[in-house]
Amino acid sequence: MKKGLSAFPLTPLRAGEVDENTWLSLIENIAGAGVDSIGVLGSTGSYAYLTREQRLRVTRLALEAASGIPVITSIGSVRVEEILHLIDDAQQAGVSGVLMAPVSYQRLNVDEVFDLYDRVTRELSVPLCIYDNPATTGFEFSDALLIALSNLPAIGSIKLASFTSERIARLKNSLPAGVSIGVSGDGQAASGLLAGGDVWYSVLAGLFPHYSRALANAALTGDHVKTRQLDSALQPLWAFYQRHGSLRVIATVAEMMGKVSAPCLPFPLQTLKGEERLLLQETLSSLSFLD
Amino acid sequence: MKKGLSAFPLTPLRAGEVDENTWLSLIENIAGAGVDSIGVLGSTGSYAYLTREQRLRVTRLALEAASGIPVITSIGSVRVEEILHLIDDAQQAGVSGVLMAPVSYQRLNVDEVFDLYDRVTRELSVPLCIYDNPATTGFEFSDALLIALSNLPAIGSIKLASFTSERIARLKNSLPAGVSIGVSGDGQAASGLLAGGDVWYSVLAGLFPHYSRALANAALTGDHVKTRQLDSALQPLWAFYQRHGSLRVIATVAEMMGKVSAPCLPFPLQTLKGEERLLLQETLSSLSFLD
Repeated sequence: MKKGLSAFPLTPLRAGEVDENTWLSLIENIAGAGVDSIGVLGSTGSYAYLTREQRLRVTRLALEAASGIPVITSIGSVRVEEILHLIDDAQQAGVSGVLMAPVSYQRLNVDEVFDLYDRVTRELSVPLCIYDNPATTGFEFSDALLIALSNLPAIGSIKLASFTSERIARLKNSLPAGVSIGVSGDGQAASGLLAGGDVWYSVLAGLFPHYSRALANAALTGDHVKTRQLDSALQPLWAFYQRHGSLRVIATVAEMMGKVSAPCLPFPLQTLKGEERLLLQETLSSLSFLD
Repeated sequence: MKKGLSAFPLTPLRAGEVDENTWLSLIENIAGAGVDSIGVLGSTGSYAYLTREQRLRVTRLALEAASGIPVITSIGSVRVEEILHLIDDAQQAGVSGVLMAPVSYQRLNVDEVFDLYDRVTRELSVPLCIYDNPATTGFEFSDALLIALSNLPAIGSIKLASFTSERIARLKNSLPAGVSIGVSGDGQAASGLLAGGDVWYSVLAGLFPHYSRALANAALTGDHVKTRQLDSALQPLWAFYQRHGSLRVIATVAEMMGKVSAPCLPFPLQTLKGEERLLLQETLSSLSFLD
């Protein structure tokens, strides 16, 4: 999970239950594109809406279909007792790493977040990726906190949902060796990789792994011209992400392409409707190079 | 739940489990002060950190100890399937109403929030209180949405975590008859009631129901002078609320008074430490009129 391209697929639902055959197809498509890892049950994978049993089943199926590509899974939960169960499940299933955002109901303070990761990492025999996503957690990691946490055993990576090039440069100078910097937020991923990010935790790659592979390769080899060219072509898609969030957009695209059955999101989350759906359909037609 | 003083107690935990005897003591203390309703498992009651089984047990115990005072309980959950189970549990236990904030992992949009309440209210045989608390949900209700939702059957009240006097006046003119306006955020409750709020959903009353009863009575009868006097005396406490959130403060006070065993909050949430705890102890000494 520490380098390269990590694909974060949707978990397709059908009436609240995981659509298992569709899930296997999504994983096989990703594995066939030669990504470096697969991040199941990320935010895009709707982990927060699924039961422990559903999460274990999804992780196991992914491991079966991943053709040996490393699989990471989320262990995030508001309840720490649930986190500890999820760690057991994930490690026994055979994941290569885990991902955790400091989700809570009450917004956490710095001491609480530190103690949470300190507690959790004691249980881990695989690396943990710290997930910094203020939009879903209400908590913003300072650089100082990320650096302090990265010195805990078992921390393998940091996934940043928002960043500047300067922040990536600062963190690269300060994090312990062996802790990679990952960028998420597809629309800024190219910039993040060119600025020194090690891994793209990619929503796009969950559905379009081949194009994402090409974009990641260009950015990770420092080919600025090709990176900008491949990224610019996707600007119309990033504009939808901005308005609706990446999850609703990629889920709508998956529905429109027949890759998942509609509605695929956990209620009450909804894919795009009305005019925005029609506009996205038009945009998608103009992005026929995506495969 | 629609009028007067509604007390929202802590749910005291001990190593992750509900401390049942302490819980019964808290409820008996509240019931003895003659509050108008008891709101168990609100934000202050840590509902989001407890299992379905724990929530049912807490609700049942409260009903046993409430001496006939109406009990309302929270049915909030990120998973809609869980919400439907919680409704069943609460209604079978015999609550007089339920409370629900639009908690989610992904921030919801207006259509999603409307559909959520629309779905949930179909299952209800008791009134629902809409809980508007952007700090925990990331969602801000517009007045227009509150008015639209209030026309759904089963909506009985609205609990506003932040408001202005003007907002309360606007809503009072626009909500259907029978839907009350509740104010929460203890530090602004006096202003909210004087501006026309019908009910104080009160954290303070969970621990200090007698003083809260006096303050609510003064405000609900329009006695501005007495209300301001009783409220002003608590300014030092509201200052701690501002810095740490009401939950951490009231939990610390409860620990310091020996009303609950420490630590009483769900991990990783923490009561105050170090100098802030000492300062709160001093403040509490100066508030000896609280009982």
